[in-house]
Amino acid sequence: MGIVGGGQLARMTHQAAIALGVEVVVLSEHPDDPAPAAGARHVAGRAHVLDDLLRLAERCDVVTVEHERTPAELLAALEDRGVRVAPRAGAARLGQDKAAARTELARHQIPTAPWVLTDDLDELAAFGERHGWPLVAKAPRGGYDGRGVWAVADRAALAALLLRTGGPLLAEPTIDFRHEVSVIVVRSWTGEVAAYPAVETIQRDHQCHEVLLPARLPLDQQVGARHLAVVAAEATGLVGAMAVELFATRDDLLLNELAVRVHNSGHLTIEACATSQFENHLRAVLGWPLGATDPLVEAASMVNVVGAADGGDPFDGLAAALAVPGAHVHAYGKAARPKRKLGHVTATAPTAAEARATAARAAEALAPRHLAVAR
Amino acid sequence: MGIVGGGQLARMTHQAAIALGVEVVVLSEHPDDPAPAAGARHVAGRAHVLDDLLRLAERCDVVTVEHERTPAELLAALEDRGVRVAPRAGAARLGQDKAAARTELARHQIPTAPWVLTDDLDELAAFGERHGWPLVAKAPRGGYDGRGVWAVADRAALAALLLRTGGPLLAEPTIDFRHEVSVIVVRSWTGEVAAYPAVETIQRDHQCHEVLLPARLPLDQQVGARHLAVVAAEATGLVGAMAVELFATRDDLLLNELAVRVHNSGHLTIEACATSQFENHLRAVLGWPLGATDPLVEAASMVNVVGAADGGDPFDGLAAALAVPGAHVHAYGKAARPKRKLGHVTATAPTAAEARATAARAAEALAPRHLAVAR
Repeated sequence: MGIVGGGQLARMTHQAAIALGVEVVVLSEHPDDPAPAAGARHVAGRAHVLDDLLRLAERCDVVTVEHERTPAELLAALEDRGVRVAPRAGAARLGQDKAAARTELARHQIPTAPWVLTDDLDELAAFGERHGWPLVAKAPRGGYDGRGVWAVADRAALAALLLRTGGPLLAEPTIDFRHEVSVIVVRSWTGEVAAYPAVETIQRDHQCHEVLLPARLPLDQQVGARHLAVVAAEATGLVGAMAVELFATRDDLLLNELAVRVHNSGHLTIEACATSQFENHLRAVLGWPLGATDPLVEAASMVNVVGAADGGDPFDGLAAALAVPGAHVHAYGKAARPKRKLGHVTATAPTAAEARATAARAAEALAPRHLAVAR
Repeated sequence: MGIVGGGQLARMTHQAAIALGVEVVVLSEHPDDPAPAAGARHVAGRAHVLDDLLRLAERCDVVTVEHERTPAELLAALEDRGVRVAPRAGAARLGQDKAAARTELARHQIPTAPWVLTDDLDELAAFGERHGWPLVAKAPRGGYDGRGVWAVADRAALAALLLRTGGPLLAEPTIDFRHEVSVIVVRSWTGEVAAYPAVETIQRDHQCHEVLLPARLPLDQQVGARHLAVVAAEATGLVGAMAVELFATRDDLLLNELAVRVHNSGHLTIEACATSQFENHLRAVLGWPLGATDPLVEAASMVNVVGAADGGDPFDGLAAALAVPGAHVHAYGKAARPKRKLGHVTATAPTAAEARATAARAAEALAPRHLAVAR
């Protein structure tokens, strides 16, 4: 299986592939990227260069992606040349184009917040007057971990942002959500679909800090979130794994983002579910039966380990983290840089409080808060 | 970490090492052996050639082994040159020399069956008369999966066997055991020891066919087996993982074999226990705190997948095996040959009956009984 990208998502996919006897080849710039450093085969090249993608495809039965940096047009070009690509270009495009995704999913009764996509200042400002300030403005393509997302206080700020970004903005009201929720859904070439239980994502510094299983939602919203993810998988013609990110308000579930790939919010499935998102992504992309997505435990917490502000390596504290009973440590083999995702820890437990405390202790052993980037 | 040997044990150790950010380098003859095929770094060479071992050691902070084919004398030679070796030569020797192991463990009140080691026919025959025929005769060094073990019916058969093997034999009575039991025990450089729950090993064609957690023993024998394993780990000065294989009779636990390495009887710890034997072996060998060995489930069954008599590849049936809910499939990436261990499946469940049925169904999907080697 070929993967465009050699980061931690490809690394953990490679790790899962070992058990299934599947050889993973990644396309990435450096042979010491996380996946090749863990032994995935390596093709040196760039995700947005067709010739590089074709060199990867030559070595694989099927090509998948670990990020959104390959334009859907290039995936379509691969498909035109007979390469088996998962996700297919059509689904990948919805992961890259927020407006297209919302339009398509609305056709399938998946609700989003009201939104407008335009580069017209008057139209954006009118939207702000109608729905209230501050608005949330997003770059219509790209952006993650808070990049490409801005809170906009008024018309003047909008004007400045339009000038700065130089392009259209997708605007939506500031959602008064109670919880941010994610559902990992997997769909095979055969059409078989499986959704994981909804998890809650908790941000810090506009970056995913913690993921909690189960999400702290009423049961009907838990069921509803999973249902929307299955509808989204079928609506997009997904093949592989996808994260469906939602806002849960008091009364509604609103689609926020699609990430058409394995996702940070699914890392805890390694320990907490019968089959990990990585193994199920492999099964889906290779056309094999999907594995059970049931949780094996009452509760789980995953905390990201990010680089400290002083540039120190959190994994200097590995032995201390391993001394925390019940914590599962994952190192990505990356050089430490401030705010960079370098690993994660997962804890499972009979209660959410216990899981959260254990994961927090292990994460603290790796990356003490007093060294973390200030909020 | 360096591993002497590149088979499935090194492969699964490499897989566990990815999460800890540890780079594994293996010494084996072929770059397509199971561990390098899964991306472990590879040094081409042989386990019994000192120069090859030294080339491995140059690239590692610590060297461990996945089999008994490196003579303890060579491990001692590495130690003399300042190489950190785990297990240390002294412990490795006990895994290679059955008589030495029994003598040493008897000093620590670990019981074995009565035994004698000699090349004297009269002495062996007298042992047979005293304890009853048939005797079990074993090569004093080497041997596994039924190789190097013979049932000897009488004095004439003993004479023929002595002639054929040309060396001394370790003889013991045929034990009327109820269960064959194994305990994986792990000991760190720091002296920290952790034992897994006792499992039961079930043979077919003199080869481990199934491993069952928990072993079907009275509670006192379960506790006793674990205790003996801890005593054995301390008595041998173990560093790393070791399998302590025991016979459980109606009244006694008798030590049978030591395997001073990760072991087939511990594969189910990947899914069934808080920390796998592979991760704990890494932690022990690298001097890190050990992880919890508690079972996460009520019951688990692991079934080995061996090559069919007709030479067909069981993993042609991979999709069918993945369709069995709750089965975890592990392929070793080896070419199929009759009776060769090519992979395993593990199932966990609330009851032993359910775990066994699930694992058997998945194994049957891979290697149907009617194609198996006749008993």
